[in-house]
Amino acid sequence: MLDLSTLARARQACETRECWSPFPEMPTQYPDADLARAEGQARFEAHLGRPFVLMQPGIIGAVGEEVSPYTQTPLGITYPRSDPDALFAAAEAAIPDWASAGIDARLRVLMAALDAIYRHYLFEMVHAVMHTAGQSLNMAYAGSGVNALDRAIEALVYAEQAMRSIAPQAHWARRFGSSDITLEKTYRLVPRGVAVCFTCASFPTWNAWPSIMASLATGNAVIVKPHPASVLPMALTVRALRHVLEEHGFDPNLVTLCVDSLADPLGKVLIKHPACAIVDFTGSARFGQWVEANAYPAIAFSETSGCNTVVLAGSDDLDATIRSLATTMCLFSAQMCTSPQNLYLPPVIDTPQGPVSRGDVAAKLAGAIAALTADPRRAGMILAAVQSPQTLALIDWVHGQAVERGRVLLQSRPYAHPEYPDARTATPLLVQVGKDARDLYAEERFGPIGFVIDCDSAEDALSQATTDARENGGITGFVYARDDAFIAHAESLFARAGAQLTINLTGAMPLNFAAAYSDYHVTGLNGAGNAALTTLAFVAPRFAVAQSRRPKGAP
Amino acid sequence: MLDLSTLARARQACETRECWSPFPEMPTQYPDADLARAEGQARFEAHLGRPFVLMQPGIIGAVGEEVSPYTQTPLGITYPRSDPDALFAAAEAAIPDWASAGIDARLRVLMAALDAIYRHYLFEMVHAVMHTAGQSLNMAYAGSGVNALDRAIEALVYAEQAMRSIAPQAHWARRFGSSDITLEKTYRLVPRGVAVCFTCASFPTWNAWPSIMASLATGNAVIVKPHPASVLPMALTVRALRHVLEEHGFDPNLVTLCVDSLADPLGKVLIKHPACAIVDFTGSARFGQWVEANAYPAIAFSETSGCNTVVLAGSDDLDATIRSLATTMCLFSAQMCTSPQNLYLPPVIDTPQGPVSRGDVAAKLAGAIAALTADPRRAGMILAAVQSPQTLALIDWVHGQAVERGRVLLQSRPYAHPEYPDARTATPLLVQVGKDARDLYAEERFGPIGFVIDCDSAEDALSQATTDARENGGITGFVYARDDAFIAHAESLFARAGAQLTINLTGAMPLNFAAAYSDYHVTGLNGAGNAALTTLAFVAPRFAVAQSRRPKGAP
Repeated sequence: MLDLSTLARARQACETRECWSPFPEMPTQYPDADLARAEGQARFEAHLGRPFVLMQPGIIGAVGEEVSPYTQTPLGITYPRSDPDALFAAAEAAIPDWASAGIDARLRVLMAALDAIYRHYLFEMVHAVMHTAGQSLNMAYAGSGVNALDRAIEALVYAEQAMRSIAPQAHWARRFGSSDITLEKTYRLVPRGVAVCFTCASFPTWNAWPSIMASLATGNAVIVKPHPASVLPMALTVRALRHVLEEHGFDPNLVTLCVDSLADPLGKVLIKHPACAIVDFTGSARFGQWVEANAYPAIAFSETSGCNTVVLAGSDDLDATIRSLATTMCLFSAQMCTSPQNLYLPPVIDTPQGPVSRGDVAAKLAGAIAALTADPRRAGMILAAVQSPQTLALIDWVHGQAVERGRVLLQSRPYAHPEYPDARTATPLLVQVGKDARDLYAEERFGPIGFVIDCDSAEDALSQATTDARENGGITGFVYARDDAFIAHAESLFARAGAQLTINLTGAMPLNFAAAYSDYHVTGLNGAGNAALTTLAFVAPRFAVAQSRRPKGAP
Repeated sequence: MLDLSTLARARQACETRECWSPFPEMPTQYPDADLARAEGQARFEAHLGRPFVLMQPGIIGAVGEEVSPYTQTPLGITYPRSDPDALFAAAEAAIPDWASAGIDARLRVLMAALDAIYRHYLFEMVHAVMHTAGQSLNMAYAGSGVNALDRAIEALVYAEQAMRSIAPQAHWARRFGSSDITLEKTYRLVPRGVAVCFTCASFPTWNAWPSIMASLATGNAVIVKPHPASVLPMALTVRALRHVLEEHGFDPNLVTLCVDSLADPLGKVLIKHPACAIVDFTGSARFGQWVEANAYPAIAFSETSGCNTVVLAGSDDLDATIRSLATTMCLFSAQMCTSPQNLYLPPVIDTPQGPVSRGDVAAKLAGAIAALTADPRRAGMILAAVQSPQTLALIDWVHGQAVERGRVLLQSRPYAHPEYPDARTATPLLVQVGKDARDLYAEERFGPIGFVIDCDSAEDALSQATTDARENGGITGFVYARDDAFIAHAESLFARAGAQLTINLTGAMPLNFAAAYSDYHVTGLNGAGNAALTTLAFVAPRFAVAQSRRPKGAP
């Protein structure tokens, strides 16, 4: 049972940043795993082709256009479409009681809400994520399930820390001239107001849950605006939160759902609404930049592109390095904001067996990716499905560019998913280009697209990679090198570029695995966004301190 | 001697929010006060009519247009005008060493810098503030001197708290499938970059010092952009900080001065400079709103207008209340962002002696202000001088409006300052209007201008005041009432409006006195700005966490 003692243990993990989680890591370790999974699937299937019941204010219609990446058929679920004005009004009305309930009461309810998601809705959520985002079952369980719950708990830890840093009251006395003034002061935590949380199509829960928790813990209300292609995970989230809030005697309108459609988007309407006080945005770099530049007077937390870079200067175990890179570049068809995209190679790569030419390394990587994706069963587990048809078009476009301007190391092709023959799939496209193709690679090309970039030297590779990360928003960076001074320089340059760095990692852990309670997310130092998730800066601006003071003993 | 032990004591004060300061409250209590004051005055006078020597990068000319409010003659000081590109380049170059010096080293140097200001430059600063801002000597010593130093120390307390909340490193181990992954993680604090600190004409140090300290403590560099009318206090600050930084082996270009002129302002150039990462702005509401809306991708902390409100529903001691209001409305000719401006009165005011009519209360207030300002010596101490000639024009304009639309309760007039016969002075204008004149009073009218606003009832007065504060940026609010339920309601409404509330205060303390380590400043909940000064939100976004992680034992 997740409760305030779990939160206390999580606080300790956040301090040491050791490995910890209250949840089993794998779906097979979930209590009564087979039953839970079957029930979750059944509950997911029961949604198909039906209106999703969500009793919330201002319903003026219905909308729903999700298509499963696994079946490429519409889910047929319609969601209530609410008037944004009604949602904001209901949210604002719900805030005062919630804000005055106090820190402990809010944290207790929110831990209960996370507990409910874990106990009652997790596998329904897993299937919802699979059939909207296209993730594999294991990733949907881990990355979109328990790991996302961990990040949500983490947000509560930091929210609590920021709120507890304010004394609730004070006694203050000072002499002014010949008289003593004694004041009793009260410091009230005031939420900023209504938060709007935008969630993305390919990884809806991971950013959303911590953002929602950060806003709610600090006393705000949240309107969740899911990407039209991935509504169900958020509809389930909103319904679960509303139930728990209501059970605990709070107004469920603290959390509502605002569904729109691709043809008739509501994003700007929500952000420019006079009652919008906080924006959490996960999505495209283009709209993300508009959000960041135009959210004012709301405050904005964002995560947009990830122009993620790998510098391979040398390796003690080149084959293991290639395997790790290949696996991570394949993982969920590189549809994660942390997926590595660009591999910057010097002419030769330093190994204990002597220098290996760039051409050999590029060929090894292409070979490793081809081997990983040759077996459909294995491909299904690693690549899973492609969320959006636009990604397939992008693969084609980059392929065309590479044919003209570089070379194609590995063609992309659909693979036959063993369980879902109609799944939208694509093995990675790997292309090799020179630095003159920077316009092509120096931004996020979302999906299974990798670039090998010819650099003049290891130092040049590092310089190119960190420049691209800094200027175009890198979230993760990876360096393989045998030289300590080079590694130290890389740490410094990636830090200034604002990308989180992983050094010489090989083995079973996906290179871009982000551990809750331990790894920080985007830094705010480059265009990839500022939603670090696990910092005071992510929570502290969500509330203010309003004080009142009066003479001691006064009426 | 201010050092890390002083900072530790300050941290304790911030936790209890009790009354504390390492400094003597009054100029007479300063060590060797007479000598220090005389020396400070002499050092100030030595600046007059000369170029101010400040060895900093990119000097391309000189500029200076300050006029003393006390003599209404130009100070004749010219300051080096530096090319903004050169300042940004020098600031960026200075950051890496400063950032890598670590938390303790930075805090030690910054405490030494504050110590140097206190010990060596305080009375020079006091006279500089007097002859640019127009403050009295006592206010320049307290509000612009030691109290501003206290707020600077406070910023260091919160910066330290935010930085210490990040573990410097971690050991992380987890099983993935059949293998163990063990990572050593390093969390590096990365400053956002170059901060630009805009300071205002009438109260230059109070906001500037905490902002500068917050940025420097977290590893950033600062370009200080003073209002052209009040450059000297910031020139002295910058020079003092540069000396101390250099003495401690750091690049003095961590702090530079960017002087402009009213005719050729550089504000937008600085904010839109690609290297601008943080903006601290104190100044007009008009430019402040532009700053907040346009600072992106820089983060912005602001303090602009103060539409400050008083609700007088009842009082146990009406005369004492009127005296406190009169004094505070006179203090520094109401040229503080916290000065009360609008007094909302119901038709009758509740007192133990029975109801008192609004007309009587308004007349008493006018009488009290007239009495306070009748004696030039006393007027000189309380009102001091008027910083800007524009304020006199504004008084005239409001007077004309009041003649047409309401009534003039008290005329403004120049008074003869006992020491400076040519001082720019004005006693307060007090006018009475109805709610139909909201366009006139519901925004900051900077300077000695007070409005008595006729309201329908006490509840109406409270509603009007808090609506005006919320919609037009109130920093402070004041309530006088005898009814507990009314006071509780006022606390709730002012908190939602985002204004700090003082209740039933009378006596020797100025109503708008803001105690360091205890009182919070603007809340961010209304248009008055978000520079709370003493919160984690004021410091935490100024740096980011860049992590690197590598397998344990790896090269």
